[in-house]
Amino acid sequence: MKRIAFMLVAVAALVGGLAYMAPASEQADGEAAPIFVDKIPPGYRDWRFISVAHEEGNLNSLGAISGNDLAIKAYREGKLPFPDGTIIAALHWRHVPSEENNKVFGRSQSFVAGPPTNVQFMVKDSKKYASTGGWGFGHFNERDGKPAERASLQTCFPCHQAIKSRDLVFTRYSP
Amino acid sequence: MKRIAFMLVAVAALVGGLAYMAPASEQADGEAAPIFVDKIPPGYRDWRFISVAHEEGNLNSLGAISGNDLAIKAYREGKLPFPDGTIIAALHWRHVPSEENNKVFGRSQSFVAGPPTNVQFMVKDSKKYASTGGWGFGHFNERDGKPAERASLQTCFPCHQAIKSRDLVFTRYSP
Repeated sequence: MKRIAFMLVAVAALVGGLAYMAPASEQADGEAAPIFVDKIPPGYRDWRFISVAHEEGNLNSLGAISGNDLAIKAYREGKLPFPDGTIIAALHWRHVPSEENNKVFGRSQSFVAGPPTNVQFMVKDSKKYASTGGWGFGHFNERDGKPAERASLQTCFPCHQAIKSRDLVFTRYSP
Repeated sequence: MKRIAFMLVAVAALVGGLAYMAPASEQADGEAAPIFVDKIPPGYRDWRFISVAHEEGNLNSLGAISGNDLAIKAYREGKLPFPDGTIIAALHWRHVPSEENNKVFGRSQSFVAGPPTNVQFMVKDSKKYASTGGWGFGHFNERDGKPAERASLQTCFPCHQAIKSRDLVFTRYSP
């Protein structure tokens, strides 16, 4: 899921190679199949965390990946695929040095979560999102804002296909 | 709290300068006042997260800082000092590159939580831990293991005093 933000950056480079994207996002009658999550799932900030992550480069982010009860249960039981109703969230913040902490450490080594950058969701609904492996994808630049432009989300599913062995979910559970 | 692990590394260098440590950890009769948390609080892996952190250098860690309900409530309401009963946890893992993710990205930029390294706690009890600002400190090298040697915890309180303005708690809440 945390791939999505990178995709936003690299979308131009990627789209050319993704010939299988169109069939995945269009039905036979030309109507776009739903693959997007348009609303932020309520209460997600109270969910338990699955793990944490750090992206360098353009993303320059620290992230917390959390999940609703169904997600946590599936992770802990090691059951795949994730059941319908599973929602996984990735909250990202700018990866910033903490001058406050470094002063106490006496050296520059401490990085903390700075301003929030985006929050992303994967929602499992094997019928609604049948065309994209059962997952809907969402990206929101504000914690309670509108979804990102749909064009920028077209790359989510093709990229997440790289991790078919774990039901399209990159993040592993951290004890 | 995440300072503690650094202290373990730098303890030799620090102890010399901490002349005020002895009065803080000893009572008039020579009995050590309790400043340590000897047991891992039950259920901490289910707590909501406060923020995330990354330490370079010897620590080389990714961390998730979480809190029990009292901690989360106090953070969200911006109330200081934290009430008795507050517990804050810092779970640390090795900061490791994700070859799996980097392969998908096409570049080396992705770091994830590797093997767990330690979990630390701050427990607020203004009477029990009166000699250390109302906080007890704990450090466990395993998720369900025994506490660290007490000597290595002697530096927790002196270091956390650097952040008196936030009731000795370094971590800020991330939305």
